[in-house]
Amino acid sequence: MPELQFNNLDKTSAYKKLRDYQIGRDLKSLLTADRVRSYDIAASNGLRFNFAAKLVDDRLLDILQELADEQQLVAKYRAILDGEAVNTGENRKVLHHLVRGQLGKPVEENGRDLRAFYLEQQSRVNKFAAKVHSGEIRGSTGRQFDTVVQVGIGGSDLGPRALYLALQNYQSKDTAGNTLRPRLRTFFISNVDPDDAAEVLSRVDPETTLFILVSKSGTTLETLTNEAFVIEALEQARVPGMKARKQIVCVTSETSPLAKSTEYLDAFFIDDYIGGRYSATSVVGGAVMSLAYGKESFTQLLEGANGADSAALEPDIRKNASMLDALIGVYERNILGYPYTAILPYSQALSRFPAHLQQLDMESNGKRVNRRGEPLTYSTGPVVFGEPGTNGQHSFYQLLHQGTDVVPLQFVGFFESQIGRDIAYAGSTSQKKLNANLAAQIVAFALGKEDANPNKSFPGNRPSSVLYGPRLTPRTLGSLLGHFENKVMFQGLTWNINSFDQEGVQLGKVLTTKVLGGGEVDPMLAAVAKMLGV
Amino acid sequence: MPELQFNNLDKTSAYKKLRDYQIGRDLKSLLTADRVRSYDIAASNGLRFNFAAKLVDDRLLDILQELADEQQLVAKYRAILDGEAVNTGENRKVLHHLVRGQLGKPVEENGRDLRAFYLEQQSRVNKFAAKVHSGEIRGSTGRQFDTVVQVGIGGSDLGPRALYLALQNYQSKDTAGNTLRPRLRTFFISNVDPDDAAEVLSRVDPETTLFILVSKSGTTLETLTNEAFVIEALEQARVPGMKARKQIVCVTSETSPLAKSTEYLDAFFIDDYIGGRYSATSVVGGAVMSLAYGKESFTQLLEGANGADSAALEPDIRKNASMLDALIGVYERNILGYPYTAILPYSQALSRFPAHLQQLDMESNGKRVNRRGEPLTYSTGPVVFGEPGTNGQHSFYQLLHQGTDVVPLQFVGFFESQIGRDIAYAGSTSQKKLNANLAAQIVAFALGKEDANPNKSFPGNRPSSVLYGPRLTPRTLGSLLGHFENKVMFQGLTWNINSFDQEGVQLGKVLTTKVLGGGEVDPMLAAVAKMLGV
Repeated sequence: MPELQFNNLDKTSAYKKLRDYQIGRDLKSLLTADRVRSYDIAASNGLRFNFAAKLVDDRLLDILQELADEQQLVAKYRAILDGEAVNTGENRKVLHHLVRGQLGKPVEENGRDLRAFYLEQQSRVNKFAAKVHSGEIRGSTGRQFDTVVQVGIGGSDLGPRALYLALQNYQSKDTAGNTLRPRLRTFFISNVDPDDAAEVLSRVDPETTLFILVSKSGTTLETLTNEAFVIEALEQARVPGMKARKQIVCVTSETSPLAKSTEYLDAFFIDDYIGGRYSATSVVGGAVMSLAYGKESFTQLLEGANGADSAALEPDIRKNASMLDALIGVYERNILGYPYTAILPYSQALSRFPAHLQQLDMESNGKRVNRRGEPLTYSTGPVVFGEPGTNGQHSFYQLLHQGTDVVPLQFVGFFESQIGRDIAYAGSTSQKKLNANLAAQIVAFALGKEDANPNKSFPGNRPSSVLYGPRLTPRTLGSLLGHFENKVMFQGLTWNINSFDQEGVQLGKVLTTKVLGGGEVDPMLAAVAKMLGV
Repeated sequence: MPELQFNNLDKTSAYKKLRDYQIGRDLKSLLTADRVRSYDIAASNGLRFNFAAKLVDDRLLDILQELADEQQLVAKYRAILDGEAVNTGENRKVLHHLVRGQLGKPVEENGRDLRAFYLEQQSRVNKFAAKVHSGEIRGSTGRQFDTVVQVGIGGSDLGPRALYLALQNYQSKDTAGNTLRPRLRTFFISNVDPDDAAEVLSRVDPETTLFILVSKSGTTLETLTNEAFVIEALEQARVPGMKARKQIVCVTSETSPLAKSTEYLDAFFIDDYIGGRYSATSVVGGAVMSLAYGKESFTQLLEGANGADSAALEPDIRKNASMLDALIGVYERNILGYPYTAILPYSQALSRFPAHLQQLDMESNGKRVNRRGEPLTYSTGPVVFGEPGTNGQHSFYQLLHQGTDVVPLQFVGFFESQIGRDIAYAGSTSQKKLNANLAAQIVAFALGKEDANPNKSFPGNRPSSVLYGPRLTPRTLGSLLGHFENKVMFQGLTWNINSFDQEGVQLGKVLTTKVLGGGEVDPMLAAVAKMLGV
C-alpha cells in the first residue's frame, strides 16, 4: 500500500492540466450515437452509468484518471475500509461500508471486531422484527403491533424515509401479484414543530404502535422532545396497563443515556464511526426497514450497497462509475464553475431520494477548510436539489432549458416500473412514456434547438449523465445509494476535505440553547428572538 | 397613468448606481438590534417581512426605490390588473390576481366580465363541494363520496398539493378542539410513472372516490394517460352500475376537448389568462380545496391572497414587502452574483411549499431573452430550493454555514403552531424551540463565529430575510402565496422578461412525441431511447 499524501486539489499537476485543457463548452459538437454506446459503463447490480452527454472527451478522461491517481482516491478509500481515522476533525474511523460487507482488513477496537458488532446488531433487529411480525413481541397491553413510527431527524430520518418510500410499492405485491401494504403501517416524526408529531400521533393507535427512537448521541434535542411528545400521547391515551416506554425501542450508541435505561422495550446499537447521513444501511435504517418489509429486503439492499462499494475499488475510472461520476462533478464545479447539480430520478418511488442526496452531499462536502483545517481557495460541494421526472418537467425544467445559467444534471431511470400495473394509452404504456420523456430530455438538454424566434430557441449544451437499470428493487436501491455515497466520498477526497464531520451544525445549536436558556444573549439575537415571539 | 417603457435592467440608471455603490460584503458590521426593529415592514394579513439580515442599507434601499420607479413596477403591475396582454410571447392577459378580487379596471372579453366568470366558476365549485359533502351528489352507484383524487401535473399539482398539505392540520380541529381529518380523504396523481397512479389507486375505493381531472388544454399527455389509468381501474373494479366518467369532474378551459364531453359528472372552467403555476387560487386549486376543506377556508385563502395583491400596489418599497423582497433578490442575483436562493419555512405544514415556489420562480423567471425575445446579457431567475426547518438544519445547512459559496436565505415562521397540541420539555414548548432555532439560525448565518480551530469557525455574512406572522391559517397561507407570486412578478418586470410563458417545456414534448411515434429520429435520440429500453 502506498504512503498516503493529502494534497489540496490545486496543488496537483492534473488540476493544472485540467485548467489548461481547452475542451470548450460545445457539447453538441461532441455528441454522436456511437458515443452514447461507448461512454456507458457498468456501475453495480445491473445499474449502468452513461456519461455521453457530459462535457468530456477521451483526453479529458485521461486527465481525470491522472487526478484520481494523484489524489490516490482508491488507496484512500482502502484506508477508509481498513478503519483508518480519516474523519480527521473528530479523529474517527468511517465505517458505514463495513455494515454492508468486509472489503478491507478486519477493523477492531478494544478487541472487538466491528464488522461482527454491526452484523450482530442487524441480526438482533431482524429477529426482533420477525417476532413483531409473528406476534411474539407485542405492545405492553398484549395487542399486536400494526404500526411503526420512526422518531429521528437528519440522518436518522431522511435516508430511512427515502429508502422506505422507495420500496413501498416494490413490497406491495405478493407472489400472486396482489397488491399488499408494508407489513406495518409506517410513519416518521422528525421536526421539532409540534404539528409534525401531533399530526402523526393523530393517525395512529398508541396501543398498537411501536416507536423507534433514533439518536446516536441520545442527546438530539428535537428527538428527545418528540420522544416526550410521544410519551405524553401514550400516557394521555389512558389505556389500562400500557407502559409508554415499552412501546419504544431505541437505536443509539452504547454509551448514550438512552442505552442505559432499562425502561425501553429494547435497544439496538450503532457507534460513532457511522455518520448520520451515512447510517441508512446501519440499524438506523435497518430497524424500520426490517419492521416494514422484513429481513430479506433489507439484506438485499445491503448486498446491493456492498456491490457498489466493491465496484468503487476499481482504479480505472472508466470502470468505476462512482469515481468517474465524482471526477466529472469536480471538473464541472472547479473548472466549468457550475455551483449546483440537479438530481432527477424518473421514478416516483424515489420521490424523497433527492432530499436524502441533498443532505448526503451538502453536509459532507459543504466545507471551506481542508482536512487539516486550512482554508481553501477553490470551491467544494455544490448545491444539490431535485424532484422526480416527469413532474419536474412541468416545473423547474424551464430554467434548466432556457435560464441564463447552466445546471449540470444527474438523471436516474429504470426499464420497468415497480408495481407492474400499466396501461396502453395513445399507443404506448406509461412506463414507455416515462422513459421516452427521459430520453427526450437528455437529448433536448444536450443538443437544444435553434428557432427563428429566440424565445423558442434552446441553447443546448446542458450536460447530463444517467444512472439506469432494469428495475428499482431492494438490491438496485442499495446499489444506487452506495453509488452516491461513494461519489460524495471520492469528491471529498479529491478536494482534500473531511466529508465526515459537520461542525457547521454546531453554532445554531449553541445559540438555540442560549435563547431557550433565557440568560443574557447578544442584543441582535435577543431582538430576533423577541420578534419571533420566543 | 404613465406610458409604460420596457427597458432591460442594465439600461437603467439605477442599475449603474447599484453597481457603483460599494456597500461591501460585511453584513456583520451593519447589524444591530435596532436594525432588527427598523428593517421590518408589514406584508399583509398580519404577516411581516424582516430584512435586517440582508446586505442592504438606507442608501441602497434608496437606489432600489429608484430602480422600482424607473422600471415602473407598480404601473406595470396595474397594467396586469387592468388586463393588458403582458404575456407577450403568447399575447395573453395575466389574470390570476382577478380570481382573488377586482383591484384594477373591469376586464372584459367578448362582452364577458372575466371577474364574474371566475367568481361564477368558484361558486359552482363551492356548491358542488357542498352537495358532495351533504350527499346530494354521489358516486354513480349512489354511494357517498369519501375520497377525492386530483389528477394533474405541474401547476395543476404542486400548488394545489402544497396548499392542501398546508391546511391539513389547521382544518383538522373542530370547535371543541378535537382533531378531525379533512372532509374527504385526499390524494394526488401527477407523474406518468405508472407506479404513481397504481399506488394511489391501491389506496382508494373506486366506488366512493371522486376524481378531479385538471388540464387547461385538455391535452396534457401525463394527465390524459393517468385519466385512462383511472378509468381502467374503475372499469376493472366491476362494480355493477358504476360509470367511470360519472366519478370524474374536469377542470379545464371551455374550448378543450374535455369540456365538450357530456360523459363527465361535471366540469369547471378556467381560461388561458391564468398560467398553470399561478392557478392555485383558481378552480384548479379551488375544486380540491373546497372538497377537502369546504368553501369558507378557500374563500379565506382567496381573501388572504387578495390582501397581498392589494399591498403590492404600494409604490414605496419600504411599504411593499413583495416588491422590496423582489428587488433585494435582484440585487443579490445581479450585483452580488448569487445564483440560488433557499426557501426555509419553519413549519412542517409547509413541507411542499418550497417545491411549489421552486416551480413558480424557476418556471417564471428562468428566461434568457427579454419580453421582446432579445437575448439578455445579465442573469435572471435563480435556482430555488428548500426544505422545512428544523429538518434542514440537520441536513444541508452545513453547506449554507460553512460551504465555499454564499446562498441567500428566505425564512418563514409563525408564532403559533396549527394544531395547538404541544408539550413542555426541558423547560420550553416545541413551538418555542422551533422559533428559538429560527432566531438562532438567522443570527448564526449573519454574524458567524470566530474560532481558533478554522474547522469550527463560521464566516457569517450569509444574508437572510424572514416572513413571519401569528399562525398559518387559510388567510395567512393565501397572503404568503400572494407575496411570492408578486415577488416573482416584480423580479420578472425588473429583468424585463415575460414571467408568464414557458417555451422551455416544449422541446422535450416534441422529442418525446417523436420517440413514441416510432418514426425516424435523430441518431443520438434513437441511441438514448434504445439505451433506456424505449
